[in-house]
Amino acid sequence: MTLYIIGIGLCDEKDITIKGLERVKKSSTVYLETYTSKLQIGIERLEKFYGKKIIPADREIVEKRAEETILKDAATKETAFLVIGDPFSATTHIDIYTRAKDAGIKVEIINNASVLTAIGITGLELYKFGKVTSIPFENKNVKTPYEVYQMNQKNGLHTLFLLDLRPEEDKFMTVNEAIDYLISIGLTKETLCIGCAGLGSKEYELKAANTSELLKKRFTKFPQCLIIPGKLHFVEEEMIERYKIS
Amino acid sequence: MTLYIIGIGLCDEKDITIKGLERVKKSSTVYLETYTSKLQIGIERLEKFYGKKIIPADREIVEKRAEETILKDAATKETAFLVIGDPFSATTHIDIYTRAKDAGIKVEIINNASVLTAIGITGLELYKFGKVTSIPFENKNVKTPYEVYQMNQKNGLHTLFLLDLRPEEDKFMTVNEAIDYLISIGLTKETLCIGCAGLGSKEYELKAANTSELLKKRFTKFPQCLIIPGKLHFVEEEMIERYKIS
Repeated sequence: MTLYIIGIGLCDEKDITIKGLERVKKSSTVYLETYTSKLQIGIERLEKFYGKKIIPADREIVEKRAEETILKDAATKETAFLVIGDPFSATTHIDIYTRAKDAGIKVEIINNASVLTAIGITGLELYKFGKVTSIPFENKNVKTPYEVYQMNQKNGLHTLFLLDLRPEEDKFMTVNEAIDYLISIGLTKETLCIGCAGLGSKEYELKAANTSELLKKRFTKFPQCLIIPGKLHFVEEEMIERYKIS
Repeated sequence: MTLYIIGIGLCDEKDITIKGLERVKKSSTVYLETYTSKLQIGIERLEKFYGKKIIPADREIVEKRAEETILKDAATKETAFLVIGDPFSATTHIDIYTRAKDAGIKVEIINNASVLTAIGITGLELYKFGKVTSIPFENKNVKTPYEVYQMNQKNGLHTLFLLDLRPEEDKFMTVNEAIDYLISIGLTKETLCIGCAGLGSKEYELKAANTSELLKKRFTKFPQCLIIPGKLHFVEEEMIERYKIS
């Protein structure tokens, strides 16, 4: 049978593609990966819209117990594995893909939107981003995000910081916490930053300001991410002016 | 009224999201941007599935005549502007977005899959890509793509080369042409490359090989793109082995 690895987009039950929904409808079992991202709605709204019971799959199930759950199902019946965003983008689900292949299971990937391109709404050229980096909650002696930023900056490139989240504890890092961390490690208070929240939804929030100004603001949507622009083209500058806090 | 800027994904008429299709259905006029990418089906299949007449919008219409076409429509009636992939990803449609806003038109963005994350199927970590670059058809004295590659390489990062296309002339750069160009400018024949074609479709093609080996192969789907990996993690290496040409 087939394992459908389906991206369901960023916001709500209607962000799945027609193709993705068709695959969900014909699946006997539907899993939703719950530990790397967060939709802006609850699982019951997905269930209602898809007309399917959804089994939440935490890291334990996906990484350690896939053989006795997802892959076992997919061996004998059409099975859907739903991933928020695009299947291979924010985290790697390549592992379950290769394990299914190795078990002789057919796999089909259904792509969808990802935060990695949804940030295009900032007006920054996606081509001009450098390496992406993540800020973890446990960051006391963590320097990588700042080093990545310095490398990108040196090359005139924009930096996207993805912020840690623990959906099972309803815990999401805020733009403010990310800035606090970056300042603690060396970022100056005059650095122009762009805070983003709830990208992919109609009510997304975008605010640009120098670090110290942005720290005074609050974002209400989740997940959030932070961008520090590199060298700006005037078209990018004009766009930032639209959501800059003066 | 509202201008809906809707990503329609990478492959066919069923890659639009439920939300996107709902917006298309309630639009009086539907434009499709035809000059920056290519679907793997014809426009008539979109029309049939959406139940709407679609107006092809070339660069002239979008960049120079939007005021008398798309924006004029959107001022008085619900209007959809369809973009292959994700609206702001492969190229910048920020311009029509800001012009609509400035004209007092409400704009809603519907995100979708982009080649920038669909390349995740290669098994390469998306976080480890550096700056993206494009190879134009007219590349006699063009050095930028190679310089971007060198910069990424120096930093251990993967490089995605997007390849030029002129859909109106049914002209698409191939992986082979891209490699020829890169060799002409300095790339060694022993460089490990990954050729990709038709990403986002079920029949996508992936082949990895040293430059000189890959040059002997043909890809049949379009659009195509080329990746030169940077420093590889063993999980990435294992994945490449699956589609490597020995």
